[in-house]
Amino acid sequence: MIVDDPATKAEVEAAFAAYERALVTNDVAALDGFFLPSETAIRYGVAENLYGYEAIKAFRAARSPAGLARELEKTCIVTYGRDVAIAATLFRRDGAPGKVGRQMQTWVRFPEGWRIVAAHVSVIDDPA
Amino acid sequence: MIVDDPATKAEVEAAFAAYERALVTNDVAALDGFFLPSETAIRYGVAENLYGYEAIKAFRAARSPAGLARELEKTCIVTYGRDVAIAATLFRRDGAPGKVGRQMQTWVRFPEGWRIVAAHVSVIDDPA
Repeated sequence: MIVDDPATKAEVEAAFAAYERALVTNDVAALDGFFLPSETAIRYGVAENLYGYEAIKAFRAARSPAGLARELEKTCIVTYGRDVAIAATLFRRDGAPGKVGRQMQTWVRFPEGWRIVAAHVSVIDDPA
Repeated sequence: MIVDDPATKAEVEAAFAAYERALVTNDVAALDGFFLPSETAIRYGVAENLYGYEAIKAFRAARSPAGLARELEKTCIVTYGRDVAIAATLFRRDGAPGKVGRQMQTWVRFPEGWRIVAAHVSVIDDPA
């Protein structure tokens, strides 16, 4: 299995960057488009556990657009073969000093493009 | 892409169950064997961010074996194609009332077997 095939990695890096832009601007329609529209999609958020695309979509629609700006740190994108990738990043927000967020996503390539099939976001006291 | 191919799902369910047994009994050698022995492996733990197999292994070796027993809840194993799977589960521990843990793993099939390439564990106030 090819790990970090350059062309595959570049595709996922572009998808990840587009997701980040959508997140910090609270572009709900774009965010919805990144997740696999399936009952099997899972998102563990900072304070909620969401099962299935509809639950994820409802969460996005209800979310406050305030305070979403963040700084990424130690972003790691790793591809395994040509159809699966892990995107993991730390993040910090000005409104949460002493805390560090962790976002991990699994992206899978489908005929229609790369989609997030699972994500987990959590915030902890900064261990650094 | 075949989602939840029964044979593939059965393999990952067996691997997940073996991992859980190793975790609650703190079988460090077995736990080490489940993670991909690579610098690309990532594990965000309850209070630590670990990059690479060696860091994950060092964490396991240093971990207290006390209080690891837990009850799983809403365990979801989803396979995409024949070589990738998401294993997500909630967990509760007697020593942490009012809290719920979330464990999400991405498993990839390599020639030597299924390995965890990325994992994220966090504990939050129970939203239920």
